[in-house]
Amino acid sequence: MTTQRYKLTLEYDGRSFAGWQIQDDVPTVQGEIEKAIFKLCGEKPRVQGSGRTDSGVHALGQVAHFDMEKRMKNLRLREALNHHLKDVAVSVLEAEAVDDTFHARFSATKRHYVYKIINRRSPLTVDHGLAWHVMLPLDVDAMNEGAKRLVGHHDFTTFRHTQCQSKSPIKTLDELYVERNGDIVTLHTSAQSFLHNQIRSITGTLKMVGEGKWSADDVTTALEARDRSYLGFNAPPDGLYFMKVDY
Amino acid sequence: MTTQRYKLTLEYDGRSFAGWQIQDDVPTVQGEIEKAIFKLCGEKPRVQGSGRTDSGVHALGQVAHFDMEKRMKNLRLREALNHHLKDVAVSVLEAEAVDDTFHARFSATKRHYVYKIINRRSPLTVDHGLAWHVMLPLDVDAMNEGAKRLVGHHDFTTFRHTQCQSKSPIKTLDELYVERNGDIVTLHTSAQSFLHNQIRSITGTLKMVGEGKWSADDVTTALEARDRSYLGFNAPPDGLYFMKVDY
Repeated sequence: MTTQRYKLTLEYDGRSFAGWQIQDDVPTVQGEIEKAIFKLCGEKPRVQGSGRTDSGVHALGQVAHFDMEKRMKNLRLREALNHHLKDVAVSVLEAEAVDDTFHARFSATKRHYVYKIINRRSPLTVDHGLAWHVMLPLDVDAMNEGAKRLVGHHDFTTFRHTQCQSKSPIKTLDELYVERNGDIVTLHTSAQSFLHNQIRSITGTLKMVGEGKWSADDVTTALEARDRSYLGFNAPPDGLYFMKVDY
Repeated sequence: MTTQRYKLTLEYDGRSFAGWQIQDDVPTVQGEIEKAIFKLCGEKPRVQGSGRTDSGVHALGQVAHFDMEKRMKNLRLREALNHHLKDVAVSVLEAEAVDDTFHARFSATKRHYVYKIINRRSPLTVDHGLAWHVMLPLDVDAMNEGAKRLVGHHDFTTFRHTQCQSKSPIKTLDELYVERNGDIVTLHTSAQSFLHNQIRSITGTLKMVGEGKWSADDVTTALEARDRSYLGFNAPPDGLYFMKVDY
């Protein structure tokens, strides 16, 4: 029997999972969705995400696809998956039958992320685990000067997890800027693809710039060093949100 | 020894507490702050809030005051209280020495609340406990028509908890309106003071209007009935935020 490909748009709370990628004995987003599909139809397709997220990283618009023999209307599939996901912090925002040529990872033309910082002395309450608490005042203009040094086509070895599996450290960063709204400092970034830990590494480094500990030139020095040991700081997963994928 | 009065501006996550008011054997916001003050100075003043909040109701700008013999600089007091509150979801945003004539409750001229609804089919993840999940599409224009019937000076008996301790059910609602931003529907309201459960009762009723189950005239009928049994629906605490107090 032939299968039908379905595209899912997903929201999840990263605090509940040991990341996207399926692993034994720990809850993962991919694992929970595969379990829900199995409960729905008894099939065990692999769910392919547009990108992996680490433990603690949230998504408001992750995209995935899978192939299923069972045919279901889009709305019915979304409701049924959400029913089987009701005890876990994953929500299917949209489900859509798509052509077999669609691939959540390889068809993606751009990925959009946001990193949320709350910049104040006082501890977080409602935002605990949902933002990075930075206590020293951040100079957003300085951060944007540093950000400009990273936009474009570069070797991002400095800003890459030592276990990153990407073949090349060379990526094109299309967009990277920071804005402040009261105590909330939000970093926006987009690229066709990112290296493992790239956004958290960039955010941690721009925080050093915002605190006045690094200059924009130090960012350039770190970038040009192509050496992880030059990294300023790696931001925690708490504030990172996978927002949207363009196809 | 004479005491100094201090004003606190507080943020807290309502999910962690059985409400504001101190009770035996359950964590309360008032109780946690009084414990922190005792750890700080060995004194046991009563902490007076500008208003009580129910279990599950959040605050981004609750105000309280207390009197202490120990003298401390404002910033030092804030840091010290936050240190003693580090294991609970209460954060002191500001601490300020004030004149004895200041009273968190009686000096308040206006209180501002926001109620956050997420209006979509799919379950909540990151916003679980931080917003009310309403699945049927809400007509915000209709909700605002209903809201207009409640603005002003009225007997709010219908929109009042049966155990409300306020002497009079007559209140003046200064502001009540709803706005939509994507899936997020936010209700804004302000008044010098509110009855117990008034905002949740109003929100639940306007949700009925937004769903097309009630008309604006039904809101007027409920208001004029002055009878709790005419209430449309009582919204859960999850989406309610105490934002700000004017003095």
